[in-house]
Amino acid sequence: MVESVALVLQEIFDSEHLVLDALKISLITNNCVPVSHIPACVVYPVNKEQIQKTLILANQSGIGVWVVSRGKNWGYGSKSPHYQGGILMVLEKMNRILEVNETLGYAVIEAGVSYAELNDYLKKIKSRLWIDPTGSTESGSVIGNALDKGRGITPYADHFGHLCGLEVILPTGEILKPDGGADHYQARYSYRWGLGPVLSGLFVQSNLGVVISSGIWLMPKPEKYEFMTFEYTSDSNKFPAFLDTFRELMFKGQMTAFPHIANDYAMLCIVDQHPKKGLALSDLEIQDWRKRHGVSNWTFGCGLYGDRSQVKNQKNKIKKALKPFGVVHYINFFYSQGLFDIYRKKIFSKFAQFFLRKSEAVVETLDWAHQLYQGNPTDFFVKQAYCLQAQKPAGVALADEDECGVIWVGPILPFEGKRIQDFLIEAKDIFKQHQFDFFAEVMPTSPRSVIILMGIFYDKKNPQRTEQALNWFKEFHLFCDQKGYPPYRETLMGLDQLFQENPQYLKTIQKIKTALDPKGIFSKGRTGKTDPNP
Amino acid sequence: MVESVALVLQEIFDSEHLVLDALKISLITNNCVPVSHIPACVVYPVNKEQIQKTLILANQSGIGVWVVSRGKNWGYGSKSPHYQGGILMVLEKMNRILEVNETLGYAVIEAGVSYAELNDYLKKIKSRLWIDPTGSTESGSVIGNALDKGRGITPYADHFGHLCGLEVILPTGEILKPDGGADHYQARYSYRWGLGPVLSGLFVQSNLGVVISSGIWLMPKPEKYEFMTFEYTSDSNKFPAFLDTFRELMFKGQMTAFPHIANDYAMLCIVDQHPKKGLALSDLEIQDWRKRHGVSNWTFGCGLYGDRSQVKNQKNKIKKALKPFGVVHYINFFYSQGLFDIYRKKIFSKFAQFFLRKSEAVVETLDWAHQLYQGNPTDFFVKQAYCLQAQKPAGVALADEDECGVIWVGPILPFEGKRIQDFLIEAKDIFKQHQFDFFAEVMPTSPRSVIILMGIFYDKKNPQRTEQALNWFKEFHLFCDQKGYPPYRETLMGLDQLFQENPQYLKTIQKIKTALDPKGIFSKGRTGKTDPNP
Repeated sequence: MVESVALVLQEIFDSEHLVLDALKISLITNNCVPVSHIPACVVYPVNKEQIQKTLILANQSGIGVWVVSRGKNWGYGSKSPHYQGGILMVLEKMNRILEVNETLGYAVIEAGVSYAELNDYLKKIKSRLWIDPTGSTESGSVIGNALDKGRGITPYADHFGHLCGLEVILPTGEILKPDGGADHYQARYSYRWGLGPVLSGLFVQSNLGVVISSGIWLMPKPEKYEFMTFEYTSDSNKFPAFLDTFRELMFKGQMTAFPHIANDYAMLCIVDQHPKKGLALSDLEIQDWRKRHGVSNWTFGCGLYGDRSQVKNQKNKIKKALKPFGVVHYINFFYSQGLFDIYRKKIFSKFAQFFLRKSEAVVETLDWAHQLYQGNPTDFFVKQAYCLQAQKPAGVALADEDECGVIWVGPILPFEGKRIQDFLIEAKDIFKQHQFDFFAEVMPTSPRSVIILMGIFYDKKNPQRTEQALNWFKEFHLFCDQKGYPPYRETLMGLDQLFQENPQYLKTIQKIKTALDPKGIFSKGRTGKTDPNP
Repeated sequence: MVESVALVLQEIFDSEHLVLDALKISLITNNCVPVSHIPACVVYPVNKEQIQKTLILANQSGIGVWVVSRGKNWGYGSKSPHYQGGILMVLEKMNRILEVNETLGYAVIEAGVSYAELNDYLKKIKSRLWIDPTGSTESGSVIGNALDKGRGITPYADHFGHLCGLEVILPTGEILKPDGGADHYQARYSYRWGLGPVLSGLFVQSNLGVVISSGIWLMPKPEKYEFMTFEYTSDSNKFPAFLDTFRELMFKGQMTAFPHIANDYAMLCIVDQHPKKGLALSDLEIQDWRKRHGVSNWTFGCGLYGDRSQVKNQKNKIKKALKPFGVVHYINFFYSQGLFDIYRKKIFSKFAQFFLRKSEAVVETLDWAHQLYQGNPTDFFVKQAYCLQAQKPAGVALADEDECGVIWVGPILPFEGKRIQDFLIEAKDIFKQHQFDFFAEVMPTSPRSVIILMGIFYDKKNPQRTEQALNWFKEFHLFCDQKGYPPYRETLMGLDQLFQENPQYLKTIQKIKTALDPKGIFSKGRTGKTDPNP
């Protein structure tokens, strides 16, 4: 870090919000993926003026600023910039909840607000509004996740689709409200398209401005909530028909949530530690592991929302549609809040263990899933990232600091059963070749497309496995791309190749980038090779 | 038109698709609003190469190109450019339907495809998919309407929100697929956010590129369709509570369509001719007119969609919720298709006339509304634009050619009953001051906001009334803006003032415009004063 720049930063930030110590910085940028870069310093702005000043300094000095909301996107890149050096800006101290509008169903929050913070606040003020959590950590940024097109699980699962009324600081330090409305525009947080071109899309998965706050639409608590589980027990040749049936349930509004249909490995990593510390399991070993827990090939838990009649109808229709493929359980009774809560749960757990042959850990999962689908975020599921370690942590997950090796790739496919199965079969082969277990979760984004979240857990302390992980990523990523199934978001390792197959798109972004960030100081490389000074 | 430019155009277009005759041009750009500009020529491309060549010619010669899809946005500007001269490009001959995907529920169409064309085609191939029509003309462009953020009426009413997979020709002539996917990207039409920044928003209500085709998501025909009507019969002091109740029905998914809640005048102009040829009616005269037709202060018709149980539940919940405010009728029986169709309708019409005191014309409206909510577009409703003329035309409406004077302003408000009523009261005063009848339709865009479609019909052949119309527009537009309720789309007369109150937004658009259209040849002025050569 140039001395003069450090001096100016010390004027902008007090010592608590500016990290110059190399060891501390390296810990902060510790990462789950096999690639990492170390910035020269880390700043934690608490207000927009500090962000503006930092960006102006960057423009003057030519030193780059890499911005993350909270940087909890484990398996994608976390807080690591795409390059060595420069300023890393983390927005986690910008965590004020600016408004909750009960009538119109939204909150206005800063970019540093986490899922847990928003949920805790809503519970504290006895709001009628529920958040839509992800299956990942409760410490993640609500806005950050949405800006990376993250997905939730309730009817409000499309996180970017529920942002409304962004406030952005452009790389030049100017403040933009990209919805066409002036400050006094009354529907800023309740009408998404504003007047004129819709610029909000420029600020997702990109490096065109710092989103410092936004409205986010929230679901009013429904009159009735129920919880269901599904286990796929049919032959694999019926799997395409199962997916097609699922799609039609969504088209008909009989399935309004967005569950993740998880394969055996994805499920087992949640409830147990890997039996061979991450060395690929044979088919027989996986089968044995499955049996120990009573886990099926494919499983999902899911919330049902609505008035009493709507939920009753959903239950009937889902059961009827999915019964030919497996087992549907409605287990709300055992998990609803009440006086005999603990006893009911205990009885159910025993019942499930003895009669349904589930392990205690699998039954415990239901409790968390039941909570999650009501908008209560939890680290329970993301602790699957620890499955190669001795044990999962008791409290909050810190997958980066704890050096969990994780890489995600989430290709997008049209929602067609046959196509999805064909893809899964080919994909599994690539995992096998690189000696990794096959992790897959089919995540419908609408009745029209699915994201298939696929990934590996690997031992970061083992250089050979880390190299294998990187090789798997390269081959699998290329395979998806060649199939025409690009990922829904990109990891640090994939940024350089972004949009290579859509040169006109690359060129257009480049023109816009040059127009808005002429010195190219902002999150360089975040949007592929589109920077003015590459 | 410069001779050399005309010569090149004659090389690109045959005589059938190039209009140079001044009289013909002036007819083509005939307009419902009080402002109009005459281009030097009109071209009708039939393929993308012609569009590219025209844009390259424009860049070489500096002559501007103003582009409309079909230019049927009556009351906003139709085919008139924002300036005199230049090339007017109309895309109505680009009207191929490229794909209908029954499984995934979408069609891929060119920008010139009209609502009627798409609907006819779907009916012809016995598709399971329904379109979402507007209340306006069936001759309008499906894509054009979506690009101007037009609204429909079924659960798929958010037209821009249902576009997916745009193909754009940039002002420089290059072809852009703004969703980040290359040509072989399989989910282009089924996943909206692609990979990377979402650029599709750049091409709505803007002048950054010609959208030549797009996917549009369509609703699969529901198992059950019902039709309802509502008449507001309470005192006006209960109107805010009615609106709040309506909002909650939407939040709960008990109202899934997007009806237009029309005031008496809006309804009467559909069923009758204006009693005083457009001279403002007194309260007593309006009351008298209302009585003659049995029309209430506020009315809406609406479709209910779903499986049998969903529709039954909607019926119960809507009736229970809205009964305190007026009369809910479910009249599907009389309008469902079948053997005794005509007789049932006739019996119902007589019944409604004698017992419900409705005019025959009002009863006829139901038939069209019942069809409309099933995705069958019609010119029936838009013929209200003819209410000042001797009679409405029998066939297709051609409001421009027939010189119907219409201006629309559609301010966006948060969906709060009290706020909406306060606004309506103040707005009505402005109509009165300018001696126009008060037209208002409350159009929910979600449970969070409404567009209030407001407008006037005026005698275009009367210069004094035309001036009054323009004065009304100016004052009312300013009033909305000052209140913080900007219109959801802009008329020709409002373009110069666009975004004046959001200078940073204007500046950002200007930078992007300069980057993508450096010579400023494309639809100059369409996005306010953001052109590189103003």
